[in-house]
Amino acid sequence: MRLQHPKSSEKKIVIVIGGGFAGLNAAKSLAHEDKVHVILIDQRNHHLFQPLLYQVATAGLNPSDIAVPIRAQFSKADNVEVHLGRVQGVNLREQVIYADDHELSYDYLIIAAGAQHSYFANPQWEEHAPGLKTLEQATEIRRRILSAFEEAENEIDPVKQKALLNFVVVGAGPTGVELAGAIADIARTVLVKDFNHIDPASARVLLVEAGPKILASFNEKLSQRAAQDLKDLGVEVRISSRVDSIDENGVRIAGEFIPSRSVFWAAGVQAARMEFTPEVEKDRAGRVVVGNDFSIENFPNTFVIGDMAHFRISSEKILPGLAPAAMQSGKFVGNVVLQSIEGKTRGSFSYLDKGQMATIGKRKAIAEYGSLRMTGVIAWLAWLFVHVLYLIGFKNRASVMVEWTWSYIFSKRGARLITSKDWKLKN
Amino acid sequence: MRLQHPKSSEKKIVIVIGGGFAGLNAAKSLAHEDKVHVILIDQRNHHLFQPLLYQVATAGLNPSDIAVPIRAQFSKADNVEVHLGRVQGVNLREQVIYADDHELSYDYLIIAAGAQHSYFANPQWEEHAPGLKTLEQATEIRRRILSAFEEAENEIDPVKQKALLNFVVVGAGPTGVELAGAIADIARTVLVKDFNHIDPASARVLLVEAGPKILASFNEKLSQRAAQDLKDLGVEVRISSRVDSIDENGVRIAGEFIPSRSVFWAAGVQAARMEFTPEVEKDRAGRVVVGNDFSIENFPNTFVIGDMAHFRISSEKILPGLAPAAMQSGKFVGNVVLQSIEGKTRGSFSYLDKGQMATIGKRKAIAEYGSLRMTGVIAWLAWLFVHVLYLIGFKNRASVMVEWTWSYIFSKRGARLITSKDWKLKN
Repeated sequence: MRLQHPKSSEKKIVIVIGGGFAGLNAAKSLAHEDKVHVILIDQRNHHLFQPLLYQVATAGLNPSDIAVPIRAQFSKADNVEVHLGRVQGVNLREQVIYADDHELSYDYLIIAAGAQHSYFANPQWEEHAPGLKTLEQATEIRRRILSAFEEAENEIDPVKQKALLNFVVVGAGPTGVELAGAIADIARTVLVKDFNHIDPASARVLLVEAGPKILASFNEKLSQRAAQDLKDLGVEVRISSRVDSIDENGVRIAGEFIPSRSVFWAAGVQAARMEFTPEVEKDRAGRVVVGNDFSIENFPNTFVIGDMAHFRISSEKILPGLAPAAMQSGKFVGNVVLQSIEGKTRGSFSYLDKGQMATIGKRKAIAEYGSLRMTGVIAWLAWLFVHVLYLIGFKNRASVMVEWTWSYIFSKRGARLITSKDWKLKN
Repeated sequence: MRLQHPKSSEKKIVIVIGGGFAGLNAAKSLAHEDKVHVILIDQRNHHLFQPLLYQVATAGLNPSDIAVPIRAQFSKADNVEVHLGRVQGVNLREQVIYADDHELSYDYLIIAAGAQHSYFANPQWEEHAPGLKTLEQATEIRRRILSAFEEAENEIDPVKQKALLNFVVVGAGPTGVELAGAIADIARTVLVKDFNHIDPASARVLLVEAGPKILASFNEKLSQRAAQDLKDLGVEVRISSRVDSIDENGVRIAGEFIPSRSVFWAAGVQAARMEFTPEVEKDRAGRVVVGNDFSIENFPNTFVIGDMAHFRISSEKILPGLAPAAMQSGKFVGNVVLQSIEGKTRGSFSYLDKGQMATIGKRKAIAEYGSLRMTGVIAWLAWLFVHVLYLIGFKNRASVMVEWTWSYIFSKRGARLITSKDWKLKN
């Protein structure tokens, strides 16, 4: 990547790294502000509505239903330029970032490069157990799920056939729970009539969690209810079970080997890697420890927000890795930059907790908002309302609602495509 | 693939190879017929509405808007089973096909494996000039088009920047014309406001044709009108220009080198390859010469239909490679199989010519139906009507119409996604 600086020297250059919820909102709060010129850099051309990524992985939504070009968000903002590029490192003292083959200096820097899956000390597991953070991973998981049923249909060895219908999801946070629930749902409702030699409803879906409960961030009762709802859907929930190994034949969990070609990873998360000069303080998950205005200690013009930031909201709690938290911190930091340029006192961040929710299959969910707790169909309707509302604003149209209504009423999935990685002719 | 035969020995086994327009219609005409058990084999899990593939390549439609799972077409037909698999060859004497690691015998065989692009004697061109026959190729072309604009935005060398905005489409049949028109359209309307350092409208789109006119299968006047419409859209049309070479830097056309990273191939086509024992008569494009009931000479129970067949409709003309022709031949051959089982005389095929059409950019098209000829907006409306109608029947819903109306009114594209081939973590 090669970037040009704007000609005007009166404007302060603000570089934003990452177009996720945090970075996008930071850039939006600086758009149309004539004191700043914003350069937003992302490795991908699209902003992704990650909470619904599991729907792409399970053929419920199209990739483009949950993604918008970052560039299109700033068509009308002359002071924001968007670049596709990869930032390797930052020199905090010299106020320079290194992106692809270029250096770029800044007056303010907002780092929001997000997080990715972590296989801890076992990167070789990735090949056999893709994570779910990007559209590419979602379509790869979709390919594996649909192909497993196709291969089982063709398989005449009953032992191999049964193994092909074992699905294992590792990690029982919201993503893992939603993925396991959706796999059970697709097998029992969508695919059930389409095969001759297998009964898709006999597919075995395991949800494996190393900790003592699923959805650990939720209240104990909600977590228990979700576990029961999953069991009703036909998902086997295994808590306090650690993964020993994963290979092409299956997964070993707490000593037991489960043959499976469809293992999916929703367990560890680590912050995106970036080289800092000088090195900065990070927590165990690689998140950068920031002060109460999200700036890095001693570098008041450099901020880290979103899933890359370790921000204390109390002595026990850090800001959670949720979309509303990322959005709020983005807006806040955008304003801090403006306050700083104008010589005003920086505000301090107060987190407005919007609660949390997770859906289980097609008709159930759990939700909590402060002391308010919801379960079952009511919670699912709340979940649907929040997500559809957000997506409509986001995509500015109703096609997602059409898609969902369709799929709900007819138990169909609009995106049951197996696409391969290779586009070339095969001879 | 391993396939099991149905237990009933009273039913005749009909194998259909390929789930395109021809094969799908053959299988559909045999569904629910209790004298036959149908085994439909395709390398992909989806049937593709190929006439709109260029819309996926230019971010107008989602892959799933133009594809349906083949399996889902036969949910209610107990006598049709669908298998994902690749057929390598056929032994016509022994009535056996070879698919992956399995042999399978048949009473009747309907071969409809379609066609693919041909780079003639230059397979090395494919890397630099993808064709447009599959969803994977369409998303690869989409990735290349959108990435070219992104890279141009980052490029400070004006010569390199200009080269990045050169788009070359080779071959001016309907696919090439539609692709070139859509690229010109996306550059001039959709992307035009979204960049800071380049003017997307300055993109140069070349349509290169070796023959003396574009859209050669159409009437001379229509062809001229289409060439004019393309020029008005800003497409440079080069007829009687042969491609000398294609590499990573660009394409040499009739001696002139055009630097370009975005060359797309819509020129030669050849029938899908399959090993026949004994060898059968084929034409220069690899199509199997068939009789007036689509059967192979001396093998009355083996039929070849669709783009793989060379079927004479008169002394000068063969059945064209169009969707309606493929559908008609599929239905016809399905009925011939039933007639044959019932000991009836085989009917003879009469082709109902439904005419042909091609669209040029967003508001123009050409269409001919017998002696009726249409151009401009009227032809475009006819084109839209036929395609939307077909797609609605096909996908059984209106989301495509929502998508198109949206994109037409707001000059937006719903699927502007750059997705890479690799889903793994990058560190």
